[in-house]
Amino acid sequence: MNKAMVIDFYELTMANGYFESGMKDQIAYFDLYYRKNPDGGGYALFAGLETIMDFIDDLSFDDEDIEFLKSKKMFSEGFLKYLRNFKFSGDIYSFKEGSIIFPNEPIVTIKAPIIEAQILETYLLQVINHQTLIATKASRIKYAAKGRTVIEMGARRAQGLTASLNGARAAYIGGIDATSNVISDQVYGVPSGGTMAHSWIQMFDSEYEAFKTYANIYPNHSTFLLDTYDTLSSGVPNAIRVIKEVLIPKGVKKYSVRIDSGDLTYLSKATRKLLDQAGLENCTITVSNSLDERIIKDLLIQGAPIDIFGVGERLITAKSDPVFGSVYKLVAIEENNEIVPKIKISDNVEKITTPHFKTVWRIMDEEGHFDADLISLDSEKLNTKKPLTIFDPINIWKQKTFDNYQLIQMHEIIYENGQRVYERPSLKEIRDFAQNQLNSLWPEVRRFDFPHQYYVDLSKALWKIKNKMIEDLRG
Amino acid sequence: MNKAMVIDFYELTMANGYFESGMKDQIAYFDLYYRKNPDGGGYALFAGLETIMDFIDDLSFDDEDIEFLKSKKMFSEGFLKYLRNFKFSGDIYSFKEGSIIFPNEPIVTIKAPIIEAQILETYLLQVINHQTLIATKASRIKYAAKGRTVIEMGARRAQGLTASLNGARAAYIGGIDATSNVISDQVYGVPSGGTMAHSWIQMFDSEYEAFKTYANIYPNHSTFLLDTYDTLSSGVPNAIRVIKEVLIPKGVKKYSVRIDSGDLTYLSKATRKLLDQAGLENCTITVSNSLDERIIKDLLIQGAPIDIFGVGERLITAKSDPVFGSVYKLVAIEENNEIVPKIKISDNVEKITTPHFKTVWRIMDEEGHFDADLISLDSEKLNTKKPLTIFDPINIWKQKTFDNYQLIQMHEIIYENGQRVYERPSLKEIRDFAQNQLNSLWPEVRRFDFPHQYYVDLSKALWKIKNKMIEDLRG
Repeated sequence: MNKAMVIDFYELTMANGYFESGMKDQIAYFDLYYRKNPDGGGYALFAGLETIMDFIDDLSFDDEDIEFLKSKKMFSEGFLKYLRNFKFSGDIYSFKEGSIIFPNEPIVTIKAPIIEAQILETYLLQVINHQTLIATKASRIKYAAKGRTVIEMGARRAQGLTASLNGARAAYIGGIDATSNVISDQVYGVPSGGTMAHSWIQMFDSEYEAFKTYANIYPNHSTFLLDTYDTLSSGVPNAIRVIKEVLIPKGVKKYSVRIDSGDLTYLSKATRKLLDQAGLENCTITVSNSLDERIIKDLLIQGAPIDIFGVGERLITAKSDPVFGSVYKLVAIEENNEIVPKIKISDNVEKITTPHFKTVWRIMDEEGHFDADLISLDSEKLNTKKPLTIFDPINIWKQKTFDNYQLIQMHEIIYENGQRVYERPSLKEIRDFAQNQLNSLWPEVRRFDFPHQYYVDLSKALWKIKNKMIEDLRG
Repeated sequence: MNKAMVIDFYELTMANGYFESGMKDQIAYFDLYYRKNPDGGGYALFAGLETIMDFIDDLSFDDEDIEFLKSKKMFSEGFLKYLRNFKFSGDIYSFKEGSIIFPNEPIVTIKAPIIEAQILETYLLQVINHQTLIATKASRIKYAAKGRTVIEMGARRAQGLTASLNGARAAYIGGIDATSNVISDQVYGVPSGGTMAHSWIQMFDSEYEAFKTYANIYPNHSTFLLDTYDTLSSGVPNAIRVIKEVLIPKGVKKYSVRIDSGDLTYLSKATRKLLDQAGLENCTITVSNSLDERIIKDLLIQGAPIDIFGVGERLITAKSDPVFGSVYKLVAIEENNEIVPKIKISDNVEKITTPHFKTVWRIMDEEGHFDADLISLDSEKLNTKKPLTIFDPINIWKQKTFDNYQLIQMHEIIYENGQRVYERPSLKEIRDFAQNQLNSLWPEVRRFDFPHQYYVDLSKALWKIKNKMIEDLRG
């Protein structure tokens, strides 16, 4: 299975069309961007760049692929030969993986011969849409958990193998601490773990015996699942008994129990009380059962004494808003070595593209908090020596001036003339960077309901070009 | 990448636990079933069995996997050696792929040594949850489209590679006609197709030239995308001009246009009128833009003259309800060659399992309509010679008697002693079977809002065993 074949058929008909009409080498600029934050939130967390680099580094079509495409009787011999020798030759600019991103800014910009840019489209969108969706969701869940441990355990409800494998990777970048999915540990090094299911307990004549057998095999990794028969009257007493009979005599210092059904606030409080009465104040409580950021927030508001959250289907599918809608739009071409901006008009105002080869600047206060982003022409130079005034691109009287500020250019160059020029950070580095980025957001942007709408404005030069093009086309 | 490693860590700790405690060969029965139909619908459409067979046929752990697991320092040498030589040796019973299924009936039953049954769990659930979710969604969308063509085009918004690849497969089983995703055609033979994006049109000096160039290259496969600049004042006139200047002179008889934004009812009606006025009554109209079964139903109620629906993110992620929640529960073990039923109790009544080795019977009227399903002990024999009375397992006074009826046993044996004994149908056969199954449902079960709750009852013998076990544990 060749990932290059994860491609919408129309990319190939267009590519063959460019080839046949002698346009294939025309340089085009495409922006990858999104329009709306997931879950009505205030930001998104960018993930997937490493997967994209893996893809582009290896991108080629083999004989089998060419034979298959030939059988469609839509593509010319010349084009198929071109495809057989395909190698990406363009430039790619991108936000660093783990960056906080906002609607309408170019997260990734591709400058390449049109035929190549088109061939990248589908897979780039798929990877970034998926991983950004899950990383963002994970960051929200971890935020709700207020520093408590969160474990991703959704493999069984994920939308296929890649959804579980790369979903756990993205969730880790977003802040979760571990996964139940072994392959995500093997492939990416996301820490994996897990203990027992109900079936383990059912296999024994009694819950007590099931716990005891497990404790003897895994004295340092026992988390007793309490709700197979009855959490409070059976699960908790048996767990306490086994901790005292098996674990404490072995010198084990850390114990844990898990509740997987019922009212988690009530049961965690009652369990805590029973554990404390038994002198097991250091026994942690894990809960699971269709959790997400809103349920976790509620549990903690109600004072549920929970130490660890196991989060499954609602994280791995981003259930409450399972589509991250990045698009990939032509914003310019080159003619006679000049950049010619391109626009797509729409009756839906938010679907009008912002033309031209652009870059993104992040404006921060002196402590490094993110205050606003500014999109400019790539050729514009900004510096922090003088005050900076930005304005809302729709309601232009809404202005804001920064006097003391820092400025970071968000785009890194990842590929230059088809060569990767960007050093791949480790997953741990990406995760640390993401957590720093999240900490640089104002709490007003992170809150779940009616968050502050972060400013993403256009430079005056860019704004003028865009509005002139709209007028020329529709005026 | 070895699919065997798509496994929750706890499956392996339990498996090692069974190995270490001498229980590994105890025969266990697990049921895979679900509790709630997606989208509040009346049924689900079972998909994924072929993918499961591919998995089990090849299931093994290689040296690299074993090395990785060894590094976790949780598993014994003996267990790792066992895993290195793992081969499935059990029996699997399953509904045929493409079957209509209902909550709480065992869709798949695994009889195997406990250690093996546990190792299958995660991947089985992942595959069946994903593909059944998408097949069911596709069947709803195709139903709303009332016989019109539906094309799956969600690859860019799918939750990863497998979500797009196997999602298109499942959607095809559910009834969609084609996909945009080339790899699903290459791997599974789902028909693929596609024409042009906005970027194609933007690459030319005018929309007219873009359409003309495309028509010359693909005279028999041109679908003109109308909404790059303005659908009615620009897109439609340019499409008509190119059809008349290029396609008709070439003798082409079939033309098509696509609308991808704006009010699809209004624009399709206005487009139809302009096309008809130009004498192009045989030009079909395709629409796309975040469609699902409810939007399609509304468009058709409003009389939108649409021939083809392109459906993206809301199908490939099952956006309105993106989790299919199958579970995998221990229902029996064997002791001294006797089947000993097992139960899991819960305060949530719907989470109490139905114990024992079971089978499922479908009761149909003389025309083959599905009237009810009956779950019995596997050992029970039913025949249609005498009237059959079934009763609701909760409100047992709710009874229904069938006099003239047909009976089909839904389980096929797929694996016997680890050998696959089931002939794999082709994808086309699975799709045809699924469409027959859908046609055997009463419309009352297929409607979207408040569908009839299809009866899934327990045989008297099974009901008695279950209730006795609950009483014994909680009474």
